[in-house]
Amino acid sequence: MTEIPKNHPRYESLMVREQIAAGVEKGITSSQGLIAQGRGEAFDYLIGEKTIDSADYAEAVAVCLLLLAENPVISVNGNAAALAPEDLVMLAQLTGAKLEVNLFHRTEERVKKIIGTLKESGADVVLGENAEPLLPLDHERAKVEREGIYDADVVFVPLEDGDRCKALTDMKKLVIAVDLNPLSRTAQTAHVSIVDNLKRALPNMINMIPDFRNMEEEDLWEIVNAYDNNVVLVDAVETIKENLTAKQNELLGIVEDSDKKDGKPGRKEPKKQARIQRDPEIARKVMMRGGDLMME
Amino acid sequence: MTEIPKNHPRYESLMVREQIAAGVEKGITSSQGLIAQGRGEAFDYLIGEKTIDSADYAEAVAVCLLLLAENPVISVNGNAAALAPEDLVMLAQLTGAKLEVNLFHRTEERVKKIIGTLKESGADVVLGENAEPLLPLDHERAKVEREGIYDADVVFVPLEDGDRCKALTDMKKLVIAVDLNPLSRTAQTAHVSIVDNLKRALPNMINMIPDFRNMEEEDLWEIVNAYDNNVVLVDAVETIKENLTAKQNELLGIVEDSDKKDGKPGRKEPKKQARIQRDPEIARKVMMRGGDLMME
Repeated sequence: MTEIPKNHPRYESLMVREQIAAGVEKGITSSQGLIAQGRGEAFDYLIGEKTIDSADYAEAVAVCLLLLAENPVISVNGNAAALAPEDLVMLAQLTGAKLEVNLFHRTEERVKKIIGTLKESGADVVLGENAEPLLPLDHERAKVEREGIYDADVVFVPLEDGDRCKALTDMKKLVIAVDLNPLSRTAQTAHVSIVDNLKRALPNMINMIPDFRNMEEEDLWEIVNAYDNNVVLVDAVETIKENLTAKQNELLGIVEDSDKKDGKPGRKEPKKQARIQRDPEIARKVMMRGGDLMME
Repeated sequence: MTEIPKNHPRYESLMVREQIAAGVEKGITSSQGLIAQGRGEAFDYLIGEKTIDSADYAEAVAVCLLLLAENPVISVNGNAAALAPEDLVMLAQLTGAKLEVNLFHRTEERVKKIIGTLKESGADVVLGENAEPLLPLDHERAKVEREGIYDADVVFVPLEDGDRCKALTDMKKLVIAVDLNPLSRTAQTAHVSIVDNLKRALPNMINMIPDFRNMEEEDLWEIVNAYDNNVVLVDAVETIKENLTAKQNELLGIVEDSDKKDGKPGRKEPKKQARIQRDPEIARKVMMRGGDLMME
């Protein structure tokens, strides 16, 4: 591992890269996974490297769905396992979801290693070794476990391939995706698209669970039914455009309004602690803003 | 290497990834390089996976600078060598530039392998093995060759680290960077920032050389002096914003104007063949558009 000087302006981001590169050495992450990580980084930079309100809202709806599901499954690939194994296990345990290792670049060895990593992080049972080609896709990518993803009603897929996401929705499963690119086929195909970094999304979702766990099913359904994924995606794209405009203004030496003066995108303000379950105002604002964008 | 099904909607992009992943196996590309590739892919997607007019303009100015230079050097890293070794060698030969291998994650073994790759691609001399810590940076990243980058007046750095780009400009060298992220520190620090995919930029630059090679130095300087890098960067960001707006409209089901109706960003039109040396109108348009953006 190359030593990154602490005074490098992108020290933190470079360190995450080292972590995921370590995942490759352990045999958990594929080299394709590194490229996917890079794409995610670019979009994370553009959304400001923080959980935006519309992503926070999508995360709340995702928690509701996982709690409502009969047979929820969390699909785990190499990048997810390298980035946040403990949080994946905790989310599964707190929502009663099964964990299933499911790889685009599948090898039995990597499946085994990822299962091992999840078990080291506290998981009891991890599906994936007994996968059969049950999805309507070419052989290797079609593989899922019958009692896992195949039978699931809600599937949580961090960092998924667009084709497989579509195969799952075609099978009438409700799909929650985590994808920093709001324009990806995955983001546009999933029912709930979380445009956020997995490393921020998972702890945020875990923190929300106590507030939702004791709610009536009826109330959870109300939150789910009010959700419009397109509004959330349009809002994420709008955030990127706003951040780009701020950058253009910097390039042109234009000073921003006083309420934004003190920061660049991503450093504008500390992450808001308010969440939808405590503050339904956020959901209202997101929907309002989305509505305004739709009117334009 | 995993076989990618030909019917996958991102087949071409996935194949380029396989090529760069092969570079890792050969020991040319670092795993960090794969992440950088991914970030580049994201921005390439956002600019529409084509050479936009302002990038074409920057490429023309870069060719002028390389032809005007007394001691031009093309800096080569692992990704550049994996993606376009022949074109790097050809650009060096046609502009009289030296080639120097210069790595962020430097190991002597990788330097040797990349030199080997460039020699296999037709290079006679490739600098880089005798690098000394001559830049004002921490030890490993400071290494350049005295008769290469250290003595250069113009340095062409595809896919460079922001710190090193700044170190070079601080040493009063003219720096040409290739970086798909118009907001990167590299793009903002270089004198000429080419916001384009290296695999498109190099052939385009090579094709331009015959037209510029016989021009008077005075005329080349005129083109260089008229150039404003900030305008080019603002234009690239504007292109991304326009493509994002088009995507938002798709999400919202809004049909675009008739002149744009038939396509998505990146597939809107075949790549324009007109180039600045044949059509100075492009440079004028870019500057005009940039000027308009600055007025807004």
